Amino acid sequence: MPEVRAAIAGIGASTFSKDSGKTELGLAIDAIEDALDDAGIERAAVDGMVTYTVDETDEIDLGRTMGLGNLTFFSRVPHGGGGSCGTVHQAVLAVASGAAEVVVCYRSINGRSGKRLGAADRPPRSGSAARSTWYKPFGLGTPAQRVALIAQRYAHEYGATSEDFGRITVLARQHAATNPKAIFHGKPITLADHQASRWIAEPLRLLDCCLETDAAVAIVVTSVERARASRHGAVLIKAAAQGIAPNQESMASYYRPVISGLPSMGVVADQLWAQSGLRPADIQVANLYDHFTPYVLMQLEELGFCGRGEAAAFVADGHLELTGSLPANTNGGLLGEAYVHGMNGISEGVRQVRGTAVTQVQDVAHALVTAGTGVPTSGLVLGRDG
Amino acid sequence: MPEVRAAIAGIGASTFSKDSGKTELGLAIDAIEDALDDAGIERAAVDGMVTYTVDETDEIDLGRTMGLGNLTFFSRVPHGGGGSCGTVHQAVLAVASGAAEVVVCYRSINGRSGKRLGAADRPPRSGSAARSTWYKPFGLGTPAQRVALIAQRYAHEYGATSEDFGRITVLARQHAATNPKAIFHGKPITLADHQASRWIAEPLRLLDCCLETDAAVAIVVTSVERARASRHGAVLIKAAAQGIAPNQESMASYYRPVISGLPSMGVVADQLWAQSGLRPADIQVANLYDHFTPYVLMQLEELGFCGRGEAAAFVADGHLELTGSLPANTNGGLLGEAYVHGMNGISEGVRQVRGTAVTQVQDVAHALVTAGTGVPTSGLVLGRDG
Repeated sequence: MPEVRAAIAGIGASTFSKDSGKTELGLAIDAIEDALDDAGIERAAVDGMVTYTVDETDEIDLGRTMGLGNLTFFSRVPHGGGGSCGTVHQAVLAVASGAAEVVVCYRSINGRSGKRLGAADRPPRSGSAARSTWYKPFGLGTPAQRVALIAQRYAHEYGATSEDFGRITVLARQHAATNPKAIFHGKPITLADHQASRWIAEPLRLLDCCLETDAAVAIVVTSVERARASRHGAVLIKAAAQGIAPNQESMASYYRPVISGLPSMGVVADQLWAQSGLRPADIQVANLYDHFTPYVLMQLEELGFCGRGEAAAFVADGHLELTGSLPANTNGGLLGEAYVHGMNGISEGVRQVRGTAVTQVQDVAHALVTAGTGVPTSGLVLGRDG
Repeated sequence: MPEVRAAIAGIGASTFSKDSGKTELGLAIDAIEDALDDAGIERAAVDGMVTYTVDETDEIDLGRTMGLGNLTFFSRVPHGGGGSCGTVHQAVLAVASGAAEVVVCYRSINGRSGKRLGAADRPPRSGSAARSTWYKPFGLGTPAQRVALIAQRYAHEYGATSEDFGRITVLARQHAATNPKAIFHGKPITLADHQASRWIAEPLRLLDCCLETDAAVAIVVTSVERARASRHGAVLIKAAAQGIAPNQESMASYYRPVISGLPSMGVVADQLWAQSGLRPADIQVANLYDHFTPYVLMQLEELGFCGRGEAAAFVADGHLELTGSLPANTNGGLLGEAYVHGMNGISEGVRQVRGTAVTQVQDVAHALVTAGTGVPTSGLVLGRDG
């Protein structure tokens, strides 16, 4: 049995809305206080913090406003939502090495009322300017525009259709409909609704694209022993990994021999299975980063839940339903619950392992969580304690 | 004997200049190729990369342009030069945990021809806007302006004078004068030169402030075993730590009961001594981050080389000279060699332990390196192998 080096003791969130009326610092505090309360760990015990490079808050502002003590570990994970599980990976390394004992991972984002990530980029930083000049003049300004080319190629190679993409959204909205926390609570859709939604960037329709949300989510990572003594016990981190495959670009990896896959997620998958000693069949529930529906199909293939080009049929066969072999995105995902840049997928993985999810899968021993794809990415396997 | 979990196998640098004529990506490649060549490690072996949040390059551009393979570890350390040793800390955690085997830490900066860090900030990010509105309207726009208030308080409390600050620069320039790589090669100064230099922000004179440089430096971190098999053998990382004390702000921690110290460096110091099992007397050479001379004095106190308020006398007594108890900044430091945001201090620590420095201290068993202060900070203790 591979060694488990750290565990999740607490999860927390702010309200999810389209207009928080708060600063991102305020949202972060809401989420962190909620997560520490969930763990039953006092804020004075926090000695590490990790967030995204793109987060607009930092640990020193949080330290001052929350009255935290000494911090001995602090870092950032790059590449937006690709770093969601990477923050927990950072925390595992810190806890395992003794660099810190209680690490708070968080993401706070006024993603709807503030800067909208779905819009075209601001002027790029100097280092990446050369990169974006290859595709921006051709109309690839927004994430959806950049992902559309990859999705089109995937559809072409494997015969996937807009309906195949739409089934991911229908599922997410079905789960969101029963989740009181979700932006789309009480608002399920049909495949016909999906098909009637307008093109954003063909083959992506409006309902293939995730929400934009004002929200924060925090995760408390600590030693297995300390997590066991926490209010809800330990959710074990069985595996945590990051990955970049060659020729990775940001949402625009067009210069690979084959562009219908997500090889950086393949790099993550290999590590997740090796670290955990598990196989896809050992996973009872998955939270797959669903910023754009085609990437959910491609992730299923990279992770080994089905063969290359088989994901559309795998989904159509109902494998991701609650009654299927791999219930997925049970919180409603980024398409239905909220766009917290992937951190809310980790929370849902924790709830599923604890057995406290709104849409609970029975007898979850292992939950898989993935981070944003199309960019450098990351993933987690969470496990029940004992 | 505490466990050593990783080692440095290679160091590299670009040319140091005021106008590189290159992109920061190009400078980074120069430094990384130089470091891998120094280690005798092929680029295909690199599977981890760490840089600063403020670096304008990233590992995916480097991966594409250098033809790197899969990466399984990548992160950023925040807070500018405070993260220099923090990048190596990240690499230690990655190597020790098996997340990566060969991690390149680097910083690339067109710090003179491009964005000048010594200038007043660009408009702040939203999260930190509230913070800076407390001091910017009062004239505290540049790093020097913000540090000046702390330096003035230090001088007031302990009777330190401008000459006491100047001795740090005279020493750095003496060392830079014999270092062919240094910007100030062949240009030593006297204390009178320092005293004749203009005020930048009293009590800081021009010659109390570090250089601005176009440069990149890279450090290759790997396992002790792999480093031992590398071209120049292993430089052991005996300790690596980060630190934030309460009420830390960015260069402007004015709301502490006492502001004449650098308590975040105290947090680092405690960890460095605990991890390494060493005491200040066990260190033969130090590279103390010298962006502003008063912070070198304050670091000596925080690290325990002398008592509180005693650093001016400690320096005047010649302890930092080559013949003293703690030869310091033997490469010329950020005041004399180049401002590579602290990464060049790590390189010099490695050279001192290897015995290959231009200004070599005899029989170096342990070298101390610190990162930028006034911000969240970090530090390293490097050690000779065997």
